[in-house]
Amino acid sequence: MTALERDLAQNAEAIEAIFSRLLPEAHGAQARLYGAMRYASLNGGKRLRPFLVSAGARLFNVPTERALRVGAAIELIHCYSLVHDDLPAMDDAPTRRGRPSNHVQFDEATAILAGDALQSLAFEVLSDEATHPKASVRVELLRLLADASGAAGMCGGQMIDLEAEARMLSFDEIVHLQRLKTGALFQFSSESGAILGGASSPERDALRAYADDLGLAFQIKDDLLDVEGDPALAGKALGQDAAAGKATLVALLGVDEARSRLLRLQASAEHHLQRFGPAAGPLRQLFAFVINRSH
Amino acid sequence: MTALERDLAQNAEAIEAIFSRLLPEAHGAQARLYGAMRYASLNGGKRLRPFLVSAGARLFNVPTERALRVGAAIELIHCYSLVHDDLPAMDDAPTRRGRPSNHVQFDEATAILAGDALQSLAFEVLSDEATHPKASVRVELLRLLADASGAAGMCGGQMIDLEAEARMLSFDEIVHLQRLKTGALFQFSSESGAILGGASSPERDALRAYADDLGLAFQIKDDLLDVEGDPALAGKALGQDAAAGKATLVALLGVDEARSRLLRLQASAEHHLQRFGPAAGPLRQLFAFVINRSH
Repeated sequence: MTALERDLAQNAEAIEAIFSRLLPEAHGAQARLYGAMRYASLNGGKRLRPFLVSAGARLFNVPTERALRVGAAIELIHCYSLVHDDLPAMDDAPTRRGRPSNHVQFDEATAILAGDALQSLAFEVLSDEATHPKASVRVELLRLLADASGAAGMCGGQMIDLEAEARMLSFDEIVHLQRLKTGALFQFSSESGAILGGASSPERDALRAYADDLGLAFQIKDDLLDVEGDPALAGKALGQDAAAGKATLVALLGVDEARSRLLRLQASAEHHLQRFGPAAGPLRQLFAFVINRSH
Repeated sequence: MTALERDLAQNAEAIEAIFSRLLPEAHGAQARLYGAMRYASLNGGKRLRPFLVSAGARLFNVPTERALRVGAAIELIHCYSLVHDDLPAMDDAPTRRGRPSNHVQFDEATAILAGDALQSLAFEVLSDEATHPKASVRVELLRLLADASGAAGMCGGQMIDLEAEARMLSFDEIVHLQRLKTGALFQFSSESGAILGGASSPERDALRAYADDLGLAFQIKDDLLDVEGDPALAGKALGQDAAAGKATLVALLGVDEARSRLLRLQASAEHHLQRFGPAAGPLRQLFAFVINRSH
C-alpha cells in the first residue's frame, strides 16, 4: 500500500464516520428516507473530493475536523447527484459501484427524495459552526458550494450531457461540459481548504487551477477506462459511451493523444503546485493516482 | 380588492421580478435548464411564503429588499418541491396551476435537474450579502432553511405522504406529516423576518407558533377545497384524495368539525400575535384569507 493509498483509506474512513453520525439508523415515519440517504452516501466510494479538501487544508494548517466537515458536505452533493443521475429518466443505470442503484434498491420516488434531502444536508453541514468558527468563512463556503452545484455548475453540466445524446459535441464542448459537471465540485474542493485556512487569492487561484487540470485528467482517464477497462473492477458495464454513439474526449483525441494529454495536464498541475513546495506532495500523488488508476 | 389582496399582489410582483433577475432568459448550452427553472418559478403563484417573510419583517423595520430576498429563497425551495412532487414516480400530476407540469412541458430528466438547481439557487440567494450585511445572520438563515427543507422537514414530510398511500394515517400522523411537509417552510418563513430584524427569542417563538397554526389551517382548508372546491378555480382535478382512498384531516374530522377547527386555529394564532399589536394586521388578514379562500 502506498502512502497515498493509506491516506485515501484513512480519509474515506473518516468521511464514512461523519456520514454515520449525520445519518443514524432511523426508526419511525421517515426511516425509509434516512435508509435511502444512508445507502446513497455510505457506499465505500473513493472520496476523492474530501481528500482534495483535506490535502489543500493541510497546506494551511487547518484543523482536520474542519476539513473533513467541508469534505463531507461536498461528498453529499456528489452522492445526491449520482442517485439522480442513475434514475431511469436520466442515465437509467441499474447498478452503481457493483450494487443496485438507489431507485432499484428502494424505488424512484424515494431515490428522488433522498437526493433532494442529501443536497439540503450538505448545506446544513456547512452552516454549522463546527465547520468553522467564523460565520463569514462558512457563508463563503456555502455560496461557492451552491454555485458549484447548481445551473452554473454540476446541474448545468448534467443538462448539457443529456442533450449531448442528441448530437455529437466538439472537443471544446465536452471540455466545457466536464468543467461544469465534475470540474466545478473538484475546483471548489481544492479551493475550500485554502478558504478554511484564510489563504491569499493567488494561493486559492493556484489550487483551483490545479483542480481544473485534475478534473479534465479525471474525465479523460474515465473515457480511457470505458474503452479499455475491466468491468469487474469498475463495478459497472463498460463501453457504453461508444455503444451509445456518444462523442468522448478519447474518441475525439484518439487513445495515444489522450494518454499524452494526461501527461501534459500533470505537468501543468505541477506548475500550479510549485509555490507550495514539498507540502503539496499528497496533491501530486493524487494526480498520479487519478491518471494511473485501473477503475 | 382588499388591502391584503393588494399587498399580496404587490409582493407577488416583487418576487416575480427577483426571479426574472436571478433567471434571465438564457442562450447556449444550458438554455433548456434555465428555461425549465423559469417555467417552475415564474408561475403566477400566490407567494404566501414570501408574504409571510415580508409581513414578519415589517414588525421589526427590516428593509424591504432583504425580506424579499429571503422570501425568494424560500419560494425557490417551494417551487422545486412542486416540480419534483409532480413527477410520474411521485404524485404523477399532469398539470399545475392550470398549465402542463414541468416534466410534461419539458421532460422528466430536465424537471429533475431544474428542481435540483432551484434548490441550489435558494441557498445561493441567502448566502449573498445583499440578503443581510451580517454573515452571522445569513448563516443562521441558511442553517434553518436547510433544516426545514431536508429529511427533518419538507422532504421527510413528502416521504411520509408517499408511504401514506399504502395505509390509512391517524389524525396525529397526518398533523405530523403536514408539519414537516408544509409546516416547516411556513414556520421558517414566519420566523425569518424576525431573524433579519434581530428580534428576541420570544418574538421568534411567537411567529413560529402563529405559522404552525397557519400551516395546519392551510392543510385543513386544502382538504376542504378538495371535497367542496371548484376545479376551474383550482386549476387541477379535485376529489383525488378521496378517490385514492387517502386519509385526510377532513375525512377524519368531518366537514363541520374541520370548519370549526379552522376558527379555533385562528383564535390560537391571534393569541400568538397579540404581543405585536396592530402592526401584525397583515398576518391576521393572511390567516383569514387562507381559511376563506375559494381555491
